[in-house]
Amino acid sequence: MSDRKTFRDLADPDAAAAAIADLPIAPEPPVEAVPLDDAAGRILAERIDAGIDVPGFDRASLDGYALRAGDTAGADEADPVRLEVVGTLHAGEAPGAAEVDDGEAVEVSTGAVMPPGADAMVPIERIDEIASESGAVSDVDVRTAVAPRENVMPAGADLAAGQRALGPGTRLTPREVGLLAALGEESVPVRARPTVGVLSTGAELVPPGEPLDHDSGQIHDVNAASIAAAAREAGADVQRYSTADDDPEALAESLRSAAPACDLLLTSGSTSAGAVDALHSVLEAEGELLLHGVALKPGKPTLVGRLGDCGYVGLPGYPVSAMMVFRTLVAPAIREAAGRPEPERASVEAELLEEARFEPGRRRLLPVGLVEAWSDATTAAGDPDGDRTPLTYPVDRGSGATTSLSRADGLVTVPAETSYVAPGERVTVELFSPAVRPPSLLAIGEDDPGAAAVMDALDRPRYLPDGTAAGVRRLRAGVPDVAVVAGEPRRDAEGPEIAAWEREWGLAVPAGTPEDVATIEDLAGSDLPFANLASGSGLRAALDDRLDAAGIDPATIEGYGVGLRGHESPARRVLTGDAAAGLGLRATAERLDLGFVPFGTQRVRLIGNPDRSDAAGRSALQGVTDRLPELLASISGYEAA
Amino acid sequence: MSDRKTFRDLADPDAAAAAIADLPIAPEPPVEAVPLDDAAGRILAERIDAGIDVPGFDRASLDGYALRAGDTAGADEADPVRLEVVGTLHAGEAPGAAEVDDGEAVEVSTGAVMPPGADAMVPIERIDEIASESGAVSDVDVRTAVAPRENVMPAGADLAAGQRALGPGTRLTPREVGLLAALGEESVPVRARPTVGVLSTGAELVPPGEPLDHDSGQIHDVNAASIAAAAREAGADVQRYSTADDDPEALAESLRSAAPACDLLLTSGSTSAGAVDALHSVLEAEGELLLHGVALKPGKPTLVGRLGDCGYVGLPGYPVSAMMVFRTLVAPAIREAAGRPEPERASVEAELLEEARFEPGRRRLLPVGLVEAWSDATTAAGDPDGDRTPLTYPVDRGSGATTSLSRADGLVTVPAETSYVAPGERVTVELFSPAVRPPSLLAIGEDDPGAAAVMDALDRPRYLPDGTAAGVRRLRAGVPDVAVVAGEPRRDAEGPEIAAWEREWGLAVPAGTPEDVATIEDLAGSDLPFANLASGSGLRAALDDRLDAAGIDPATIEGYGVGLRGHESPARRVLTGDAAAGLGLRATAERLDLGFVPFGTQRVRLIGNPDRSDAAGRSALQGVTDRLPELLASISGYEAA
Repeated sequence: MSDRKTFRDLADPDAAAAAIADLPIAPEPPVEAVPLDDAAGRILAERIDAGIDVPGFDRASLDGYALRAGDTAGADEADPVRLEVVGTLHAGEAPGAAEVDDGEAVEVSTGAVMPPGADAMVPIERIDEIASESGAVSDVDVRTAVAPRENVMPAGADLAAGQRALGPGTRLTPREVGLLAALGEESVPVRARPTVGVLSTGAELVPPGEPLDHDSGQIHDVNAASIAAAAREAGADVQRYSTADDDPEALAESLRSAAPACDLLLTSGSTSAGAVDALHSVLEAEGELLLHGVALKPGKPTLVGRLGDCGYVGLPGYPVSAMMVFRTLVAPAIREAAGRPEPERASVEAELLEEARFEPGRRRLLPVGLVEAWSDATTAAGDPDGDRTPLTYPVDRGSGATTSLSRADGLVTVPAETSYVAPGERVTVELFSPAVRPPSLLAIGEDDPGAAAVMDALDRPRYLPDGTAAGVRRLRAGVPDVAVVAGEPRRDAEGPEIAAWEREWGLAVPAGTPEDVATIEDLAGSDLPFANLASGSGLRAALDDRLDAAGIDPATIEGYGVGLRGHESPARRVLTGDAAAGLGLRATAERLDLGFVPFGTQRVRLIGNPDRSDAAGRSALQGVTDRLPELLASISGYEAA
Repeated sequence: MSDRKTFRDLADPDAAAAAIADLPIAPEPPVEAVPLDDAAGRILAERIDAGIDVPGFDRASLDGYALRAGDTAGADEADPVRLEVVGTLHAGEAPGAAEVDDGEAVEVSTGAVMPPGADAMVPIERIDEIASESGAVSDVDVRTAVAPRENVMPAGADLAAGQRALGPGTRLTPREVGLLAALGEESVPVRARPTVGVLSTGAELVPPGEPLDHDSGQIHDVNAASIAAAAREAGADVQRYSTADDDPEALAESLRSAAPACDLLLTSGSTSAGAVDALHSVLEAEGELLLHGVALKPGKPTLVGRLGDCGYVGLPGYPVSAMMVFRTLVAPAIREAAGRPEPERASVEAELLEEARFEPGRRRLLPVGLVEAWSDATTAAGDPDGDRTPLTYPVDRGSGATTSLSRADGLVTVPAETSYVAPGERVTVELFSPAVRPPSLLAIGEDDPGAAAVMDALDRPRYLPDGTAAGVRRLRAGVPDVAVVAGEPRRDAEGPEIAAWEREWGLAVPAGTPEDVATIEDLAGSDLPFANLASGSGLRAALDDRLDAAGIDPATIEGYGVGLRGHESPARRVLTGDAAAGLGLRATAERLDLGFVPFGTQRVRLIGNPDRSDAAGRSALQGVTDRLPELLASISGYEAA
């Protein structure tokens, strides 16, 4: 352990960003030609000048008759001018003999070439056609006067040959694709995408789709998929490499073989002492180690260097740390190399609902969620069109939790010297993308299948199943739009009841052997392992109350004190044979084909935030809860109250 | 012409949108499974519940020693507790014999399984390792007390098995991809994309990349590319069909064969009488014609119907009309069928700088551009953080011009009964997408290669080369940030001169035969065809002045009155042999390898909008014009002034 790397001199985050921005990651060649059909979303590499006039000829702008404007002088509804019809001309036809002289007209369709001699069009609606004996139109009465060029689009009026049509750096949308099509460009010079290699390291990593050995501490590889997706979003062509374990030699070899094919190579993990040594020696042998350690939380163990002509960034292994370092330090460099304009500054000022505390010393990136509601101060000002301050709350489940990001809408950057931000303070939230919208409804509380069914029926809700106690506490702080409250907590949620249902609860037991555990008393003093839920859940509170009423000491039940997180977790322990009984719902026991010992029913209530009775999400929720019986019909042991 | 279709009963635009929304265009089956790597950007079709606990075991959150929290009671820097080291455990390893009893500790890496018997981790930074004689660590001094569970992430703390992880309808970003990876989902059920067939019709259409016969009125097919790109953006899988000509039988056959493979078939064009008849009869024979004609401008000749199980919309042929009808009426239905949430309402309130006049009767969609500046009223209020009103101007180059859209940033919807909107009125601009940003600088004026070079050096400028007269006039209305002014217009632009250069102008003549036309006098009274620029250009004004000074009647010069649009257009007429001489620049003549008769030099000036001296674009422009000599170096006959 003597050579364990420490981070005595952490780089300033801005210096780290600059070091990454200076890496040689621009693709070579920097321009590629793509077919017009694939050009949308790409960045134009060069200026496009019109190579042709658009249109390439004087064009009739509407259906009607081409004539000499001078012939229509004085014509009106009461006193039309009669002209002889000398031809017909459709779009895509050469005029041929259709030529217009004084006193003559040619029938012309929209988009056709103006026949020689004509200088204006009269719309068909202002024409009376006069048929000859053969039935063909021989003459027309023109009921309006027109000026020269009227209803004619001159050659080059859209774009003239030689004009600058699009500038370098233009992001191609369907509108620019249309313009390029009009110019006849079938192949478009766009900025090439930098090739970014993505490689996760760690002996514990298993690709998604393969089974995990929990006992050996295996987990799925998160970074490979999420960093690859984020790099693509920033404009990279992503090259995935197989997960390397931490073995220093293997890791070094992976880097050596990947670097020549990439403009930028990203690893994640490999922060153990041996792996870091290997990284150092490869970087020093084949390139350069520029920086190790950044004064950013999360993100301290970040490495920056070069491997030959390939840029290198070693991201932390924790998914949240890796993603935040990527977003903050790496994505801007990829966008620059891909020629992408900076994304629109997607940040909002928001009022923090709950306090946040920090260990000072490193700049801190705090994930936060937004709610579609506004601060009291703003509401009081009473100006609905004014500058409203949205509300936000910290989402800090730790760098090891993917939900730290999936529950958040953006990041707040907290300076290194700040240790506390009080509720009510205004913070700047950098949204994860300009398209981010706050959830339509934020629900926090009991992990309950009925609540999940209600959420499924809403558009874009966010449901944090952190337990009844968390729902009640955070409703008090004004965070959720609605709390999901199971049972009767000692300190109850304050707010209107929006909906309620009853759920049957009890013990999940092995199928076919209900006699082993028929009541909770059977567990007390026995060796039978019990699987419990964490305190904070409404079910756990109900079980605590039941033991209390029965005078049973929880300590006499094996495993009672180890609370599991999900409402199904105890039943799953029964399923795997790790527990003889588990606290849970009839719905879960039946779904998992377990036996069930019923203890009774418990009421689950949706309690609204009293300050948000007129929020849009609340009325949507009301619409959904009106059909509660239907939503709960497929869940055993559930009944709308 | 007697059966020409007229639009007596135009459908209300909202009724048309509803009819399209009701078309049966949802894909069947509505769900498809995609690999996790392809899931970013897709819409989750079903709720995803956690199938496993994440993490699947109690996990060490940092590098250090696992021990029993009780053993650390009272430990601090001054009075550490000594424990015996009984093993080492890395991430991805099963604990095996590494078990912790009272007085013992196991060295554990971040991410490893907590060894049995241990309930907390002490970070390595708070540990002193004591080596035995063999050099291995035999004991540790623990310099801090920890609580049970400290620095341990319990199984399921991120997500517990059975918890609702993601709801149906969630748009998958890299963050959700990470969550799905953590859950081990390698295949993700997402909303299937509706298959949208795109087919342009018109005998005059030629695909981009193929040559045009201008004399026959051929133009490039714009809609196929732009509507396909827009449909993809809305969430469709696009199927392109070859351009059909208007021949009714061929058109009918194209529709019949395409419909079974599509959820929605879009045609554009085919509004000629015969083609419309063919559409009507196919729709009536194989499905239903629901609607023909919409009270929308542009967009009147829109058709809505069904072809068997396939929805059908016939878009107008003009690119701008087709794109606006698509955006307004069709895209919402595709998004709905693709399960895409409505895009964020991307609209801004803006103050109109120039008047807009309308023929009343149809709801009008007016393309507008934005400038990165704010109204006087707002500036006067003096609150830079307040609710600033951006400025906007109409971009109406006609439905036939692709530049009507590529020059615009969004649309203003004008009610059918409105005939006039005055300068200074506030309008709501629906941006083409939430990512749209106003150009960093708006320049209007002379079509000049020097100005184009300046624009190329800026990030996201918009340059409308509509002539000096347009630049001066619109600067007076306060529209551009800068006017490009060539020569000395009678009514000059008012504002600070930001930069200026001289350009050499004269006549482009055929190469090698300069003696035919050595001066402008040679053209007067001759039969030699001359190619001129449109009035409004600074070059044309200079030529008018020169003739005036020489006492030459412009009418004696063949073709003098027909003004072309682009600064290169006259020279190109000389190149093709259609003119004996053309007004233009030395730069153009040399580039096109033509001869050149010099008349002198003309000054081109960039005149700033006096109200926007502190706009960001202006200082960027100043930075660019500081290196004007370098930018103009490659343009013949140009010199910085």
